[in-house]
Amino acid sequence: MTQVLLAGGCGFIGSHLADRICRRPDVTRLVVVDNLWTGRIENLAAVADPRVEFVQSDVETFSSETKFDEIYHLASPASPPWYMAQPLRTISANVVGALNLLGLLKPGGVIGYTSTSEVYGDPVITPQPETYRGSVDCTGPRSSYDESKRCVEAMLFEAHRVRGTRVKVVRLFNVYGPRTRPDDGRAVSNFITQALQGKPITIFGDGAQTRSWGHIDDIVAALERYFWLEGTEYPGPVNIGNDREISVLEVAEFIQSHFPKSPITFLPPVVQDPTNRRPDLTLCNQILPGWQCAIPYEEGVMLSVEWFRKEMLIPA
Amino acid sequence: MTQVLLAGGCGFIGSHLADRICRRPDVTRLVVVDNLWTGRIENLAAVADPRVEFVQSDVETFSSETKFDEIYHLASPASPPWYMAQPLRTISANVVGALNLLGLLKPGGVIGYTSTSEVYGDPVITPQPETYRGSVDCTGPRSSYDESKRCVEAMLFEAHRVRGTRVKVVRLFNVYGPRTRPDDGRAVSNFITQALQGKPITIFGDGAQTRSWGHIDDIVAALERYFWLEGTEYPGPVNIGNDREISVLEVAEFIQSHFPKSPITFLPPVVQDPTNRRPDLTLCNQILPGWQCAIPYEEGVMLSVEWFRKEMLIPA
Repeated sequence: MTQVLLAGGCGFIGSHLADRICRRPDVTRLVVVDNLWTGRIENLAAVADPRVEFVQSDVETFSSETKFDEIYHLASPASPPWYMAQPLRTISANVVGALNLLGLLKPGGVIGYTSTSEVYGDPVITPQPETYRGSVDCTGPRSSYDESKRCVEAMLFEAHRVRGTRVKVVRLFNVYGPRTRPDDGRAVSNFITQALQGKPITIFGDGAQTRSWGHIDDIVAALERYFWLEGTEYPGPVNIGNDREISVLEVAEFIQSHFPKSPITFLPPVVQDPTNRRPDLTLCNQILPGWQCAIPYEEGVMLSVEWFRKEMLIPA
Repeated sequence: MTQVLLAGGCGFIGSHLADRICRRPDVTRLVVVDNLWTGRIENLAAVADPRVEFVQSDVETFSSETKFDEIYHLASPASPPWYMAQPLRTISANVVGALNLLGLLKPGGVIGYTSTSEVYGDPVITPQPETYRGSVDCTGPRSSYDESKRCVEAMLFEAHRVRGTRVKVVRLFNVYGPRTRPDDGRAVSNFITQALQGKPITIFGDGAQTRSWGHIDDIVAALERYFWLEGTEYPGPVNIGNDREISVLEVAEFIQSHFPKSPITFLPPVVQDPTNRRPDLTLCNQILPGWQCAIPYEEGVMLSVEWFRKEMLIPA
């Protein structure tokens, strides 16, 4: 008799989490709340399960007479062009959304939150452990995302401290794979959709900036273990990501090697684009022994290419 | 025909700002919103002005058919024991409050926000310029205050960037003086109220932590210059405070020297109490030429002693 609320369940990561929740025999009801701002209802079509109810609503205003045993808050755009275009809405979805969701939690229930490596800003240490306080410009163009994620972390850890609320907070590093919007705007999906259309592959800056590329299947495997399979009560934050650090240029060159008609071109760097990203997974390895990102980007990118090819109706 | 909304206008700093707003002949109406959580209606009694309307309301839910030319958002507890006791309410007052207030701003109007030196956390550089990104633990016991202030900064600078909203953000360093609640809980008011009652003066930690003590009269003089007197459109953030860096122990010893019956005693340090604070005033000096904290703590503290003596009905 477990009732679960998933906010942002039509999004890239949220819809994969919905799939995993549906594997659980103990779940009797899964309410997916999404306003379809960046999420897509097609993502949720994968869930042909009578226990799933979809409610099109902002997370801030969703109301329910039922209280939930588990709530997962993934309702936020995650791609810079999307959140930079509507920064106040981004802050509201995260912060006001979290306040609203806390009110929908059954006493003794647990709330899970997908925070982000962006809480580290442009880090001056590598790899980044959870204790690193970060280097975020709270007045800058990435601040609506970075600071609202930080503020929700504060809210949840303070709810844990003063009320004993059960919380589980992960800091996700870069994730890619199927169900990313073709117009998402981040590097891997940009490169793939450009290559599939025979357009130039565009890199912002010189491509020397590094990222931690985690394939969605690996990442949701970690999420389901931490959120419900392991039975841990550790509140987090826990870094989840791939600690193989790869430059943006290397990924672009790999994709280009399969699409020789798409030359790599360079555009001016994005303002305050972080120079590096690499998770310190020491804590993650303790919480989720044996877990790692098993899919190398060379394999994950090619799997993604096939998904985008179908999605964009481009013949092989 | 200037209509002004002041949120938190019954608070320590807010009520002094109300006094300054009332000096302006161009202001036709001043609406003071305060829920009297940490503010006190007695503070506003100083404003015996028919243009002033007091509304007892949370800042998050205050509504008005009028839109305002100027809005000042000072609705937040500022003392650690107060915000640590109700951290979610603190986040809501700041962040949800700011979202609500933005909706009450007339097109072309200006919103002023009192952010804080706490956005720098426990700084690793001194003095702290506005460009310093800070060292805040977004999972720690001070995070509800620090991170909600950071998040509102993000919101306002993003509103400025995407909508052209006129914003003015100050980062206030430590402020003390008349109208601080006797039960506020911060160092200067604690020391004075303890001394006036003949109790021991209690220092958390060894007292070597430094602060930037600005007397309220100096601080509101800077606020009125920046917010309306100077005519600047600079959005901030601007540090405002005293760059004479003084240890907590020095202030305690100064007060103790006037109250020899109150010995100084030491208590365990407060978790994550910042070790140092000192504003870099380079930018402030450009925006507000000639301004500085003119009242030395030796004078300001004695003025405060007299105010607290009357407030607490303690005979001289």
